[in-house]
Amino acid sequence: MKTTVGAVAEMVGGQLLRGEATHELTNFAALDQADGTCVSFFGNPKYREQLERTRAGLVLVPDGEVKADHAGALVAVANPILAFDQIVRAYGTLPPPFVPGVSPAAYVDPGAFVDPDSVSIAPNASVLRGARIGKGTRIGAGAVVCEGVVVGEDCVIAPNVTICQGCLVGDRVILHPGVVIGADGFGFEFVEGRHRKIEQLGIVRIGNDVEIGASTTIDRARFGETVIGEGTKIDNQVQIGHNCFIGRHCIIVAQTGISGSTRIGDYVVLAAQSGVAGHLTIADRVTLGGRSGAISSIHEPGGTYFGYPARPFKEDRREAMRVKQLGNLMKRVKDLEARLEDGAE
Amino acid sequence: MKTTVGAVAEMVGGQLLRGEATHELTNFAALDQADGTCVSFFGNPKYREQLERTRAGLVLVPDGEVKADHAGALVAVANPILAFDQIVRAYGTLPPPFVPGVSPAAYVDPGAFVDPDSVSIAPNASVLRGARIGKGTRIGAGAVVCEGVVVGEDCVIAPNVTICQGCLVGDRVILHPGVVIGADGFGFEFVEGRHRKIEQLGIVRIGNDVEIGASTTIDRARFGETVIGEGTKIDNQVQIGHNCFIGRHCIIVAQTGISGSTRIGDYVVLAAQSGVAGHLTIADRVTLGGRSGAISSIHEPGGTYFGYPARPFKEDRREAMRVKQLGNLMKRVKDLEARLEDGAE
Amino acid sequence: MKTTVGAVAEMVGGQLLRGEATHELTNFAALDQADGTCVSFFGNPKYREQLERTRAGLVLVPDGEVKADHAGALVAVANPILAFDQIVRAYGTLPPPFVPGVSPAAYVDPGAFVDPDSVSIAPNASVLRGARIGKGTRIGAGAVVCEGVVVGEDCVIAPNVTICQGCLVGDRVILHPGVVIGADGFGFEFVEGRHRKIEQLGIVRIGNDVEIGASTTIDRARFGETVIGEGTKIDNQVQIGHNCFIGRHCIIVAQTGISGSTRIGDYVVLAAQSGVAGHLTIADRVTLGGRSGAISSIHEPGGTYFGYPARPFKEDRREAMRVKQLGNLMKRVKDLEARLEDGAE
Repeated sequence: MKTTVGAVAEMVGGQLLRGEATHELTNFAALDQADGTCVSFFGNPKYREQLERTRAGLVLVPDGEVKADHAGALVAVANPILAFDQIVRAYGTLPPPFVPGVSPAAYVDPGAFVDPDSVSIAPNASVLRGARIGKGTRIGAGAVVCEGVVVGEDCVIAPNVTICQGCLVGDRVILHPGVVIGADGFGFEFVEGRHRKIEQLGIVRIGNDVEIGASTTIDRARFGETVIGEGTKIDNQVQIGHNCFIGRHCIIVAQTGISGSTRIGDYVVLAAQSGVAGHLTIADRVTLGGRSGAISSIHEPGGTYFGYPARPFKEDRREAMRVKQLGNLMKRVKDLEARLEDGAE
Repeated sequence: MKTTVGAVAEMVGGQLLRGEATHELTNFAALDQADGTCVSFFGNPKYREQLERTRAGLVLVPDGEVKADHAGALVAVANPILAFDQIVRAYGTLPPPFVPGVSPAAYVDPGAFVDPDSVSIAPNASVLRGARIGKGTRIGAGAVVCEGVVVGEDCVIAPNVTICQGCLVGDRVILHPGVVIGADGFGFEFVEGRHRKIEQLGIVRIGNDVEIGASTTIDRARFGETVIGEGTKIDNQVQIGHNCFIGRHCIIVAQTGISGSTRIGDYVVLAAQSGVAGHLTIADRVTLGGRSGAISSIHEPGGTYFGYPARPFKEDRREAMRVKQLGNLMKRVKDLEARLEDGAE
Repeated sequence: MKTTVGAVAEMVGGQLLRGEATHELTNFAALDQADGTCVSFFGNPKYREQLERTRAGLVLVPDGEVKADHAGALVAVANPILAFDQIVRAYGTLPPPFVPGVSPAAYVDPGAFVDPDSVSIAPNASVLRGARIGKGTRIGAGAVVCEGVVVGEDCVIAPNVTICQGCLVGDRVILHPGVVIGADGFGFEFVEGRHRKIEQLGIVRIGNDVEIGASTTIDRARFGETVIGEGTKIDNQVQIGHNCFIGRHCIIVAQTGISGSTRIGDYVVLAAQSGVAGHLTIADRVTLGGRSGAISSIHEPGGTYFGYPARPFKEDRREAMRVKQLGNLMKRVKDLEARLEDGAE
């Protein structure tokens, strides 16, 4: 990005309230991170204090009074958020455009089903025997699409992703780098002092419009399918065990783990670093707080749960409050003891 | 999979109790996930309720009375679990067969020790100088076997695995996609305001029959060896620090972390999302509960520990119970205070 | 490694106190892990008990009395730690030397900026259009350097690393295998029952002398930059959300997560499996204990915090102590009740 205050004001149809139209701008940033080279914006009254202290080269502000003593230029617009978005789209780091074709440095097995005119396969990607890639889909460098995998249309399979044999991926799915779909579930029988592997012969099925974050792992079913429902969004470093069934439009935040055979409803939110034990059922629209862990099923839809073991939010708060009052309670018991001693004398 | 009720009944030598022999079946599933296209089974009385409600196209049931109003066909067999296994093996998604040979799209350094007639090296895999691959071992697409690594016989090194320089891998070891063996341990000296790297010049040694889950990371020793004992099974996204010594036949469940130089005995179980601090010793056959964290050594073999800091199971339960009773305790103290006030008046 | 007791004694200029000069040594290990094939050392009085029981083939000891009945040879030196380091460097598993050149099995886009005489690009690595690689930098096998990425000088980009489009990496940076820099941040708007993706058009900027452990993921900013400050060291499987700003010379230990838009000061230490919620500020030199989680900002520099929610260390200890005394408190309340009953009779 290399633009000026004047060019930005013109692009967003704004009014230059203060500053030099010729001042150069080379970056974007939030108010508190911006320096003189940055465009920033003030779109939420919550950040008024940041606005007053920002050193941004240009701040997009709504019409009306603003206090921004340390900022460079100020440009007034009707909606600073939309105006900022417009600039970000014009100058941000866009993903590379879709260019159909199979790189000569990629490996596509002769037994794979790939139309080189409608898909994009990057260097050092591997598409193995029997795999099918839908039109408009791109396979990133170093990604591996194993035997018999089916990937739908308009997907982004990022670099160094692995999709293991037989797994099914819907349309418009995004798999970020390092994702592993369909590694074996973790199942063993203990026989004569050793753990004997239980073969994992199912697959993973990923619905349409699912997005899965970097280095997340989703294990294949023991038999049948591990399922990720349509529209569900999964963050980085999440672990989902074999035979899990995740509903539609869920949000699963980073470093969360779900043990095997658990069934998660629709519109469930699992906050960061949370966990759900195996063989449970979590009802629709349940929210599990950050770092909490469910060890029994939650059958009532829509509640918010915290803690470990996870329990209704209010109960968790109440208990935490009581623990905080323990010092006071101890003092009161000591007083009672002293008064009884006095009374006894 | 594409079969019929009749064909399944015949394959498992069962008796068709109900349903159409010509009904088509294309999938397997547990009772609660099955629909009309699926074979399922009822092998454990615990799931009787699921049986009554299942919509499976065919359920394998034991001889005797069963209630399954919503299921399609029912086939009686002596042991439904074994019969179901037989079908899964016949129709499940089997791992691709071992086919010896080095893909022309793989890179094998001229200084590596690889017998192309006895190993299988997939496209875009890299086997670097001095590496040795044992017979019957397959190296997946995109996997990297670095300088001087020794991999034993009949191993499965999945796609996009990395084994760093000098590490040693036993026989019949399975490394799932994204595993990293032998990255540098995390060691620094603080010198004049900066963290100076302590060189990590040891290796990782992995025993026979070890299985390691997707995206698990095991760091090389500062010097000497980080060791994973024979027969130990490690789940996904586990982190094992430098110079750890993990015993034989342990089970380490997903997202667990073990800090550096810790010694874990044989037959230890570390449940999901647990942690063990550095420089500790954990005795044989100890079990650490899910999400618990050991911050001191456990010298007595065989116990079960929970919580953070981890303590004997009963102690942890007792304390949790007491905390639950805090509201009641507070009420009792208030009552005592009131009675003493009354008495004082 | 293949040497003898005598050769080691000579190399470190030590005095053979006990043992056969011709005894063969093939490995190093800490005192408690060493067997007869190993060199070990006794450098810290804390490990005196380990010294007495060690079975090491040779122990480097300081001048003066030592008790090591089970060890083989003993060699006295002025500083056993330095002497041991000398041996480790001579015989340890050194990283392969830097050899400039682009492997014919690598893919370097014609539009990338790569000087084959000053960089080292391994087989099956991909360097895409517009990427720049600084001199002295090595790109490991299977690593992917995406469009427009800039990597500085003397970096080590390990095998199977992914650096996504437009990200900036300083000088002398080490990225261990499986690291993902610049995957999309996790941002969605909820519109008509579906999560709509918020485009992530910023980058990640990594300062000089940063080291990042295996399978760690750092997301690109929504706009502007996610920043990792100079000299900061990050362990394995850490997750850093979009628009985070991490200061200089921090230590972030394994499996820790930092949610989006959080600002971490300089010299901050986040111990293993800890977490910091989003949109917070953590002051310079703050230490967060293992498995603790900060859910509000910490503005005072230099303190140590524990627990979840994280609070000052002493407060956390005090509360834990009170909870431990709950059984005793309950008994005292019961006694009081009994005494009041007796009094009432």
